Parts: sequence; C-alpha cells; structure tokens
Amino acid sequence: MLEELTSLKEQLLFQGKFEHQEFKNIVIAGMGGSGIAGSIFAEIFDACPIETVSDYSVPAYVNHDTLFIAISYSGNTEETISAFRDAERKGAQTAAITSGGTLSKICRNTLIIPGGLQPRSAIGYMLAPLIASLIPGSSGDLKEASRTVEKIDSSNAQIKEEAGVLVREKKLPVIFGFKPFESVAYRWQTQFNENAKMLAFSAFFPELDHNQIMALESSYGRDSLAYYYFSGASGRVRDRIKFTIDLTGIEARQIPVEGRSRIAQIMHLVHYGDYFSYYAAIERKIEPRDVTTIEKLKKLLSQI
Amino acid sequence: MLEELTSLKEQLLFQGKFEHQEFKNIVIAGMGGSGIAGSIFAEIFDACPIETVSDYSVPAYVNHDTLFIAISYSGNTEETISAFRDAERKGAQTAAITSGGTLSKICRNTLIIPGGLQPRSAIGYMLAPLIASLIPGSSGDLKEASRTVEKIDSSNAQIKEEAGVLVREKKLPVIFGFKPFESVAYRWQTQFNENAKMLAFSAFFPELDHNQIMALESSYGRDSLAYYYFSGASGRVRDRIKFTIDLTGIEARQIPVEGRSRIAQIMHLVHYGDYFSYYAAIERKIEPRDVTTIEKLKKLLSQI
Repeated sequence: MLEELTSLKEQLLFQGKFEHQEFKNIVIAGMGGSGIAGSIFAEIFDACPIETVSDYSVPAYVNHDTLFIAISYSGNTEETISAFRDAERKGAQTAAITSGGTLSKICRNTLIIPGGLQPRSAIGYMLAPLIASLIPGSSGDLKEASRTVEKIDSSNAQIKEEAGVLVREKKLPVIFGFKPFESVAYRWQTQFNENAKMLAFSAFFPELDHNQIMALESSYGRDSLAYYYFSGASGRVRDRIKFTIDLTGIEARQIPVEGRSRIAQIMHLVHYGDYFSYYAAIERKIEPRDVTTIEKLKKLLSQI
Repeated sequence: MLEELTSLKEQLLFQGKFEHQEFKNIVIAGMGGSGIAGSIFAEIFDACPIETVSDYSVPAYVNHDTLFIAISYSGNTEETISAFRDAERKGAQTAAITSGGTLSKICRNTLIIPGGLQPRSAIGYMLAPLIASLIPGSSGDLKEASRTVEKIDSSNAQIKEEAGVLVREKKLPVIFGFKPFESVAYRWQTQFNENAKMLAFSAFFPELDHNQIMALESSYGRDSLAYYYFSGASGRVRDRIKFTIDLTGIEARQIPVEGRSRIAQIMHLVHYGDYFSYYAAIERKIEPRDVTTIEKLKKLLSQI
C-alpha cells in the first residue's frame, strides 16, 4: 500500500490526454475512487457548466453539445458503463479514462492509464489527464503538485501520530471542507472508509453555519467525533471557521495546506488524507488494501 | 412549530411565479433552509445544466445565457446576496424568491412569498414557485404533493414513536438517499441539526457501495448510529440497498414513500423528516425553533 501511495508524485506527471471537439457543457461519470477525480476536477474547472454523475444514467439535457467523460479505473464499473451507454444514446461526444476492461472496448476515444493499483490509489492517473486535456497551461501546476505530494512521502511522522491518537480515542473523523477543498473533505471520508474501515463524515463551510452549527454545540455524541478543518480559507469563510469553533466549543484540529497553485494545494491535502487513513488502518491492525465486502457485493449483483 | 409544519400543505399550493426569458443554463443560490429548495429542484429538473451554489460567488461560466435565481427566505443572507451581485456582474438574467429584506430591494425580478416562518418551515413557498415557473404542467403534481403531506399532519403517531426510540437510545441518524431523494436525505440531516440540535449524516446509493460499505461492516462506533433508508428504489439500486444491509449487518429502518408523482413522493419524505426531527426535539426537551447560535454567529460576522 505504501508503494502505491508514493507513486502519486509520478502519476501527476503522467502525460496522457484525450481527444475532444468543441462542447458547451461537461458531464463526468465515475464511482468511488474513480469518481473523486471528476469531483475534484469539477471543483476547479468553471469555464462551462459541469456536472458529475455517480449513477446509472446521465441527465436528460445531455446531447451533442455535451462532452461526456467516463472514468473507471478497472473499466468494469457497472454504473459508469451504464452512464456511458446512456450518454452515447443521447448523442454526447464521449471520452473515457481507464486502465482497460469493458469501457476500453466500448469507447473509441479511450485514454489508457497504467493499471495494477487500487482505484483509490490511482487518483493522479485519472485527474492529471482531465486537467491536462481541459485546462490550458496547467502543466506547471501539475509539476508543483507532484513536488508537493513528494514532501509528504518523505515526511509524515506527524500524520502517523495524529492517526494514532484518533484511533486510540476511538473517535470518528468529521472533515470540514470549503471551496476548493470540498471534494478533498469527501476524499478523506472515503479513504477512512476504505483504508481504515472507519465511518467518517464531511461537511462544508459556509453551508454548515446554517444548520450543523446548532448540533455541534449541543448534540449528544458530539465528543465521539474528531473534527478537522483545512487551513487556507480566506475572508468571510476564514472568519466563519474561527467563530464556529469558538461558539460551539468543539475541539477542531487544523490540517495545514501547502503549495502555491490550487492543484498543488488540493493534491497536498488529498495525500495528507491518504497517509492519515493509511496510518489509521495500521493503528487498527487492519489491512488497508482489503475491500472484500465490495467484492462480495459485486458478486451478488452479478448473480441476479 | 407544529403550526408552521402544518402550513406546508398550503405552501405547496402557493400560486406565485417569477418572470424569465430564454436561458441555456440555471444557477440557483441559497443557504440552509432556503438552499434546500434549490437542491430539491435541481434533482428533478434536467432540461438544461443546473447548478446549486451555497457560497459567496457563482461559477465563472455564468453569463447572459444563465438564469440565476437567488433564494433567501429572509432576503438578508449574506452569501446569497453576494452571489446575486456576482451573477449580476457576470451578466446573468436574475430572479429572486424571498419574503423581503435586502434581496427584494436589489433584485427587480423578485417573487415575494409570505413571511413570518422559520426559513426551514417555508420550504413549500420556495420550492413551489421554482416548479411552477420552470416545469410546465406541474400543477397537478403540486396538488398531489399537498394532499400527501396533509396525511402526515393528521397521522404521525408512529413517527413520534420512532423519534422517541432514536433519542432514548442516544443514537445519531444516518440517512441513506438515492436519486431523486438525495436532497431529501440531506434535508433530514439539517432538520435534525436545527430542530433537535442533533448531529446527523447522509450518504447515497449507489456511491456508498464503493467506500462507506467497508466501514458500515466493521467501523468502531457503528452501533452508535441509527440507519434509515427510503422505500421506492427500483432495479439495481433496490438490489444494492438490500445486499448492503445484508452484507454489513447494520440495522436499517425503512421509511415508507407515498405519492404517485416524484414531487409528491419527495414532499412526503421531506415532511416525514420534519416531524421526525420535531419529535426528536420534543423527546430531548429542546425548543425546536431555537437557533440562538446561528443568530450569535451572524452578530459576530456583522461586527467585523
């Protein structure tokens, strides 16, 4: 698993691009560890309407003006394949990012990425081509992101310590995100789920100040959760984070953001969460790579 | 509070519409109890790209092709006002739904709705005009929705009992949604937050089968949560819900969906959650209307 984690720095330098013509909107389909690449991309791309789909079909508006991108690391994710066929039926321009599988056979415009990893460990291979293909002039930022995550590979003793505390106190993590780090907060949640087999939750500023803040102050069970937020907020959102912590009295740990570009900052935080959840698994004496239940579910679904 | 709840059936019959010209995409801004109207609408409307914004600004692509709708029950929500100004600056066609406040003064195309309620109790006033204005032929569905929620007003003893069990067992609710009930699951979460001052979380099928399922099976703390899912799923999603519960061994309670049209089904589930969270507050001996901490936060923010 550690070897997979340390490959992220190379993944971000992966040179692949997919072809596309002009388009007026983008729809990206993907689930779990593949879907998160689309979610992160959708949070930084805003040149046209963009929607992510984690389901079997695409919205009714999809047509020849749509660039539809299917992302499935294995190429065999049933929801993504179904969404791909739906998008094709609706006349969208299609592309796929995958290491192989059915998707590589049914999509003529497929970018093949290196296989052999856990999908969630291949986030760089899936995200870098989206950025390289659709955001001109982004190669410098991807290089910076690569350097930034490499620093975590070589220095993560503190993350290990934090993960140890979390698990020994038997708390479940709640990660507070804000734009452009909402998908990062969700990524942390899912990495705790898959690597450490721990429930985890995410919430977002400023939205949570309109509802969850009431519960943070006085819910039973609030001390069974561990709260984390990212540094790097500015303006009103920064003020809101400070005031929310003060008013509710929760103990919230700040996770430091590093990097200059948004892409580097996002990947820094993603990688921080990768190690955090990995070390949480180690502390729980759980194999981080194990996803037996997901495999069992796929088998059950294939039999009906 | 009960009086506010029982007004939903009339709200759904509210006849207001806002004006609009042609558009190619929609952006709806709103926070908390006002924002949820936009989220529910975005889940049922798919004639063009639609995005909800819970923040201070709108995406860069917003221009004269965009119909921008600001929803703020008070008319004074700072994020929504800021997003409105941003959308105007970017040349969008604008509309607002509000009971008054600043928004009614700065937006020329404002639909005024009845005031005096808690924003989260006025969801019908904010949702019905979106549907009436943008989905032709929807008045029958809104009438059905009104009749469907009325049934809950007159018969909710079982919901009271369920809420009593939840609170006495000191569990935190996790609500599993799926399309078109993802926003409903989030609405339940926020109603538990504001009414009952309880932490609550939501997750979505089929996405959660790619990550959270691993934690549902073996996370510590999983028995401190109470799991709910809605009836009414079909096909693969229905199979997934069944298999996920079987494989993980979680105790999950099914919430029955009623109504024929999607709008009626959604409003039935919304209203079920309204009562559930209301009775949870009563069981906790907490005033459901109280949102003192949110008010304190607004005051702090106004002073800097």
